[in-house]
This record gives sequence, C-alpha cells and structure tokens, in this order.
Amino acid sequence: MKRSIGAKPVLYPTPTLVVGTYDAQGKANAMTAAWGGICCSKPPCVAVSLRAATYSHGNIVARGAFTVSVPSRDHVREVDYFGVASGRDQDKFSQAGLTAAASEVVDAPYVSEFPLILQCSLLKQVEIGLHTQFIGEIVDILAEEDCLDERGRVDVLKLRPFVYAPENMSYFALGEDLGRAFSIGKELRGD
Amino acid sequence: MKRSIGAKPVLYPTPTLVVGTYDAQGKANAMTAAWGGICCSKPPCVAVSLRAATYSHGNIVARGAFTVSVPSRDHVREVDYFGVASGRDQDKFSQAGLTAAASEVVDAPYVSEFPLILQCSLLKQVEIGLHTQFIGEIVDILAEEDCLDERGRVDVLKLRPFVYAPENMSYFALGEDLGRAFSIGKELRGD
Repeated sequence: MKRSIGAKPVLYPTPTLVVGTYDAQGKANAMTAAWGGICCSKPPCVAVSLRAATYSHGNIVARGAFTVSVPSRDHVREVDYFGVASGRDQDKFSQAGLTAAASEVVDAPYVSEFPLILQCSLLKQVEIGLHTQFIGEIVDILAEEDCLDERGRVDVLKLRPFVYAPENMSYFALGEDLGRAFSIGKELRGD
Repeated sequence: MKRSIGAKPVLYPTPTLVVGTYDAQGKANAMTAAWGGICCSKPPCVAVSLRAATYSHGNIVARGAFTVSVPSRDHVREVDYFGVASGRDQDKFSQAGLTAAASEVVDAPYVSEFPLILQCSLLKQVEIGLHTQFIGEIVDILAEEDCLDERGRVDVLKLRPFVYAPENMSYFALGEDLGRAFSIGKELRGD
C-alpha cells in the first residue's frame, strides 16, 4: 500500500561528490554534494547542484571550471567534513589533512587522496531555484591505477565508493553484485 | 599513482531510475535511466537525461510530465529489461509482468510494484548533446508504507534500492552503514 509523503528532494541512492574549486585568491576548496550525476554521454558531462550561498558556487562562476573527486570508503569522515564546513572560514584541505593537487587540464584542484577525478570545464549553468545546476564537460578523468582492471576500466570493487541516503542521513557502502546490466533482462524481451 | 583514462561518462555509483511516460495513444511506457539525480531542493526537482532517439523522450516533450519509480533489488531483472527494449516495439509493462498505475497528480504512469515514486511535472528541458536533460519538479512522492520508519521517512534498509556501476556494467546492492551524515565529520571542523 502506497501513501503520499509529500514533495521533497528524496531519491535513493544519491552519490557523494566532492567538488574542487579555486577561490579568487587561488586557495583550493572542496565541498561535498549529493545532488548530481552524469547528464550526457557525448560530450561526457556531469551535473552538480549547489546553493548560491556556498563558497564553491562563486568559485565555479568566476573560474568556469571544477573537479568532481569520487572518494573511497576510507575517507567517509573527511567527506562529511567537506559538507559541514565552509571554505570562507577554513582551509578545508589542511583541516581535513588532505592534499589539493592542481588539475593539468582545467583551472581547479582535486583531492589527491581520492581515487577517481572528473576534471570539468563549465558548459552550462542552469538556475532552478534554491540550487544552481552546474553542467561540466568532463575534459579528462584521472584514476588510481590500482582501481583499474586489466583492460584499464574502473572496477567498482577496487574503487569502493559509497552513497548517501537522504532520509536516513547516513552513508552506505556498496554490497553484493546483483547481475550484469544489458544482459539479465534480455530474456524478458522474448527475442 | 593516477593515470588519465580519457573523457567519458563515468561516475560511481549512478542510480537506477525507471522513467514512466504515456505515448500519444495513452500506452504506458517505462525506461531505465542511470544518468540522473536530484538537482534542486526548493522546488524539489529530479533530473533525468534521455537520448532524443528514445520513445520516452518524445513522450515527455508531448505530455510535459513523467514519473521516476525507484525499484527495489527484487526487480533487478525487470529494470534491466526496461533498459534494453523500446516501447516502440513492445508493451514493456506487460512483457515485464508489471503493472502501470496512473499518477493522480501528473499525466504519467508509474510502476505499481516499485516502492518509491517521484511524480514530476516538466520544469525545464536542457539540450546538452547526445542527451536531453529533463528537469522535473517533484509534485508528490508515493512510498510503500512498509518502507517508512515510525516518523514517516523512507528507510533505505527497508527500501533496498540498488545502483549501477558503469564500467563494471553490473548492478550492486547497498552494503553496510558507514556513519551518520552531517555528524561524523564535525570533529574535523575543530569547533
């Protein structure tokens, strides 16, 4: 039996994306965003939504670039910190004990300790309401070598990312493999 | 050590969203999309990106509405099928053995057997490249009662959603709880 729970921003699961930017003084900043995801295959693009009040919002508008660092479960605590502090008040990288590395392809820093880095050039800025959606073209991806399989593709079991569950307000690891995509449903097609 | 793996649409994890629409004849259709996520809190909005070639794309443009049904792990096979067949060729609901229910608040159907339903009115259509991003305002959410906690919030452990891992091309369940959001990182703030 279903019942209405009202209009609210709820979806399961949402990712934990760490957005890297430079401020006007060139100080690296990082913030955690759960509102985002891939939004186009060609050109490859990722979207992240930020409130105008955040420090990172102004940084992206000014620099036209950002990175999305995907953390592994080894850094849940630092990721949570990146979501509860502001770069206006603190040097978040040093406070978290993490390293800001400069992207070689876009004007933005990334979290050196995190295993997967999407380096993005700002393609579109979409004003929706409380949040602005920044659509970044993925210019290049950096990955830790030990997270790649023998064919050079990212292996999620080596990457060990985690997700955010909005109403639980908790982070969760990934669990068991439930089956091959574009495969296990084919028999229902009847061909 | 990091290395470049090029520019491609890769992110971990991505959700498995089943988009419900009506075609011109009023036939219900469902397709699976992994490119999407929440994109605004006020008004609450969800984004899904679809190629113009899909049957659902034309349906959303014509009707100005869609639903996003979040499946539980009990229906991985049907979700995969919704991603590998077209509503142009098949009645996907009957082929999957699932039930199309009419939303009472928007002009779109949803998957009755799935536990969480975002009912959306089309707010913006953003042309990016191969994919069009549809931003839907979440008018109301329906949830199965047995997926709610005692305060009426969705409990992800009862919902049992799953994620898609792009380069593994597999679906994964959620695993262990790694800690409270907006909490475990606070001590790093030093206040």
